[in-house]
Amino acid sequence: MTTEKEITWQERSHAKRHAILSAIPKKWRITGTIPSAVDLRDCTESYIQQYLSPREIEITEADAVLITQYTTVGSWSAVEVTEAFCHRAAIAHQLVNCLHEIFFDIAVAAATALDAYFAEHQKPVGPLHGLPVSLKDQFHIKGVETTMGYVGWIGTFEGNKGDTRARTFESELVRELRNLGAVLFCKTSVPTTLMSGETANNIIGYTWNPKNRHLSCGGSSGGEAALLALRGSPAGFGTDIGGSIRVPAAFNGIFGLRPSTGRLPYEGTANSMDGQSTILSVVGPMATTARSLKLLVKAILEQSPWNHDPLVHELPWRNSVERQIQERIGGDPSALSFGIMHHDGVVQPQPPVQRAIRLMEEMLRSQGHQIIDWRPPPHKIAHVIAEETFQMDGGADVHAHLALSGEPQPPQCFVAETTYLKAVEIANLNIRKRQYQKSYLDYWHSTSSLTRSGRPVDAVVCPTAPHAAVIPGRYRHVGYTSFVNVLDLTSAVIPIIHASKDLDQLEHADLGQHAEYDASLYDGAPVGIQLIGRRLEEEKILTLAEYVHDSWVELSSSAPNTS
Amino acid sequence: MTTEKEITWQERSHAKRHAILSAIPKKWRITGTIPSAVDLRDCTESYIQQYLSPREIEITEADAVLITQYTTVGSWSAVEVTEAFCHRAAIAHQLVNCLHEIFFDIAVAAATALDAYFAEHQKPVGPLHGLPVSLKDQFHIKGVETTMGYVGWIGTFEGNKGDTRARTFESELVRELRNLGAVLFCKTSVPTTLMSGETANNIIGYTWNPKNRHLSCGGSSGGEAALLALRGSPAGFGTDIGGSIRVPAAFNGIFGLRPSTGRLPYEGTANSMDGQSTILSVVGPMATTARSLKLLVKAILEQSPWNHDPLVHELPWRNSVERQIQERIGGDPSALSFGIMHHDGVVQPQPPVQRAIRLMEEMLRSQGHQIIDWRPPPHKIAHVIAEETFQMDGGADVHAHLALSGEPQPPQCFVAETTYLKAVEIANLNIRKRQYQKSYLDYWHSTSSLTRSGRPVDAVVCPTAPHAAVIPGRYRHVGYTSFVNVLDLTSAVIPIIHASKDLDQLEHADLGQHAEYDASLYDGAPVGIQLIGRRLEEEKILTLAEYVHDSWVELSSSAPNTS
Repeated sequence: MTTEKEITWQERSHAKRHAILSAIPKKWRITGTIPSAVDLRDCTESYIQQYLSPREIEITEADAVLITQYTTVGSWSAVEVTEAFCHRAAIAHQLVNCLHEIFFDIAVAAATALDAYFAEHQKPVGPLHGLPVSLKDQFHIKGVETTMGYVGWIGTFEGNKGDTRARTFESELVRELRNLGAVLFCKTSVPTTLMSGETANNIIGYTWNPKNRHLSCGGSSGGEAALLALRGSPAGFGTDIGGSIRVPAAFNGIFGLRPSTGRLPYEGTANSMDGQSTILSVVGPMATTARSLKLLVKAILEQSPWNHDPLVHELPWRNSVERQIQERIGGDPSALSFGIMHHDGVVQPQPPVQRAIRLMEEMLRSQGHQIIDWRPPPHKIAHVIAEETFQMDGGADVHAHLALSGEPQPPQCFVAETTYLKAVEIANLNIRKRQYQKSYLDYWHSTSSLTRSGRPVDAVVCPTAPHAAVIPGRYRHVGYTSFVNVLDLTSAVIPIIHASKDLDQLEHADLGQHAEYDASLYDGAPVGIQLIGRRLEEEKILTLAEYVHDSWVELSSSAPNTS
Repeated sequence: MTTEKEITWQERSHAKRHAILSAIPKKWRITGTIPSAVDLRDCTESYIQQYLSPREIEITEADAVLITQYTTVGSWSAVEVTEAFCHRAAIAHQLVNCLHEIFFDIAVAAATALDAYFAEHQKPVGPLHGLPVSLKDQFHIKGVETTMGYVGWIGTFEGNKGDTRARTFESELVRELRNLGAVLFCKTSVPTTLMSGETANNIIGYTWNPKNRHLSCGGSSGGEAALLALRGSPAGFGTDIGGSIRVPAAFNGIFGLRPSTGRLPYEGTANSMDGQSTILSVVGPMATTARSLKLLVKAILEQSPWNHDPLVHELPWRNSVERQIQERIGGDPSALSFGIMHHDGVVQPQPPVQRAIRLMEEMLRSQGHQIIDWRPPPHKIAHVIAEETFQMDGGADVHAHLALSGEPQPPQCFVAETTYLKAVEIANLNIRKRQYQKSYLDYWHSTSSLTRSGRPVDAVVCPTAPHAAVIPGRYRHVGYTSFVNVLDLTSAVIPIIHASKDLDQLEHADLGQHAEYDASLYDGAPVGIQLIGRRLEEEKILTLAEYVHDSWVELSSSAPNTS
């Protein structure tokens, strides 16, 4: 019955890729050839600055807190800020392929309305007035498509043809961001399936790491982190079911938070394997400073998301907790204790990651904090639970979406077609998960007998991945992040060092992982570490993350050899 | 290889039933014949009092708050209080078959230790010092068996022979109750499978409603509610996955709370279909007054259950919320608004229940509160989601436990052997559930446009079941309670009236449900209504429940015809 000409997935993909590039104004297109990774490893900072005016650089290198300090009092206009980030994001995409949707015209119109509001009322719309916010391409925004990297989703709503929600429906987070005065301007790249530590799909191809273009930007919120590293956005939101916020944050030298489930609204957001309830994906902020993460979380909580997302707990930002932690920070340093985990017992981290953890431990120790060697229940158990959970449906969801267009799964994405689990098997998995959570909680609680404060360890420092960024195709072990999802803990990623071919030479071989280590190839790749708290400890972890990072910066600036 | 003589399930069951009765001291056994239900419909109050001394009556008819006022200052000894309740519980069991485990000797030993502690330290062990607390037979207590009504669990740990946790392991709630100074003395009856609105199993038989022995005590926390109605215990804990706290509370004229998931600890408690995570069973308090429920919840939260149960949120009792609600109660009455739901659109309540809701509406209106006609998204949807969830494993768990002994499923229990759901089907069910939760939340939030306060409706009043208690074998529709579980709301049950053959004559026939209504048989059966709040609103709902019930008692005593 159809008179429509058969279009191949390659043609669809090509058209979409072209449409994304076409959304970049001509004046912002890079006309010359971009150097290869061999000639231009790091395209951040001075390299990208060449395309921008001094004023654009000033604006785009401010963090979200500073920007809103200016925009909420009218000293910076929303339009000027928005245009600066649009320009820088456009360049960023041309350098590393980090965007799925570009809607600068919509953004500038929204910014114009914000400026008009300010001019009329002499007050901001909300605490994020005029702040450009980028979003991972799972969030729905009016007037904009959501492909989530699937060719079969082009021109549909989550793969459903003719669904009137296409380009009209908005995710709950988006509604709240608008209320807060944020300006949405682009959506960032994800790997097909979302289940990958690299970002690659059949629409935009591969998103490279802007700090080291030989390597991956990580995944699945990979485009988001790459864009932030290039300062093409001051702040954004990703999602995390196994490490998808933290891995790219660590790989790109930025900050990210994986909150516990029930804290930030996921309502109305596209997802992979939606309805799988053993390990829930969560929404979390990503930004260029720790204090920006706090700004975003506090702002969203002010919107009372629990009135609009049934899975969010009515848990406003707890100032009392933040104050308590600040008092601890300002008090006797030995009363603050950190667990340190150098190795998860499954895969030994490579030299740059080992060094980052060692440096953190030395710093915290030198500040007088108590260090506890972290010896939790075997992480291997968590790793297996996460693997079984992610394959629960036998790959049915992902393969159905691939089949919409006939596109193949990119090699970096790893959802196999296997046997699905039955109800009883899922129940058993849920029981194993709860038992592991219980054993871990008991362990954590038991550390109160080891600390001088008599309280359990305040936070745990551990690797985010075994490697600094990753060589394409070589992401093997997500256990350093996925155990946090199994346990539903709060985890912030803090950038610490960059891999160094001089400092990070391989000494002892671990054939499983270290065979793939290449000191020279990794040189310059960022290493971020995790700072982990218990469930629903967002206030505590964000406060500690800021403290730990500030301390690190202070130490590094006085002893530059450490970074 | 076994030399053990084959024992039939009937023999095992008979021996266990006999052992339960044998645990009652000879002096407390009823020697004469107990009148039939025809001759003795109501065995509470004056009937049971005949077996007790005036001092025992004084103690056992005090509520948990009053008891702890005396026991925590040493004016009542823990031993005297414990012995009085042991005696009354022993009589109660002989009247209605409400106990699975009787361990009065262990209880008196614990009470003796509490008295010794008080004598030495002149202070109580905790806020529940010397308070007898009964528990539904899902909780594990050291020295005591847990059968959960399964013949195949006798002599095992949850059906596992040789598991060393049998009679040694304790549920987290039990550990916390001990810390608080509570005295555990008996475990109460449940229906086989736990999935029934009546309480019947092949060990103790049928638990009758003490207010009307023609009828069921409800289920699944049926023994608990029957014991409380007979004042054989001042306070206890049940569990609720579809109404299992609220139904028996309503049927027995007592109070019960179904908190939201994540508030009270379920850790280490036996369950049916453990690991099913679409609708989680929750632990909740049951007691003879509303203020006792609050005492129990506050006490447990003081134990920081989140340090020991990974699924409990770190959410201490919020005094600020309690204060806020008390201020609303003391303020302009029209600023407090109640939704009233007379009928869920699926099954029309019988006349006694209709009258209870009508009386509540009239009372709240007469107090000047705003009444909103509750017109939520179709409850039929929730009902179907709950039914599919409860059959998710195709009955595998329940039928495996029945098969341990070869016992048949009692006719009141309704877990069929059907096809299990696959992972994708469970995911779809979870999505449908979340969508229903979202539509209900949106509806609730939208009522802010109807209220004078500009806030959404404070609480919703609705039936607990279509009937007052129930004629054995005639429980049909659990939708009045199960929608609360699907939505994960907070719901307290408040006793209001008793069915009356004079006041509750059938006027309009509804052939589906009302064909089974029998005004004369139901006469005297309690009717309790639900007071429902949003998710995690335990402080609010417990405060409002106390207010609403106190108002009702005041009104009833000035106009006795209403009850």
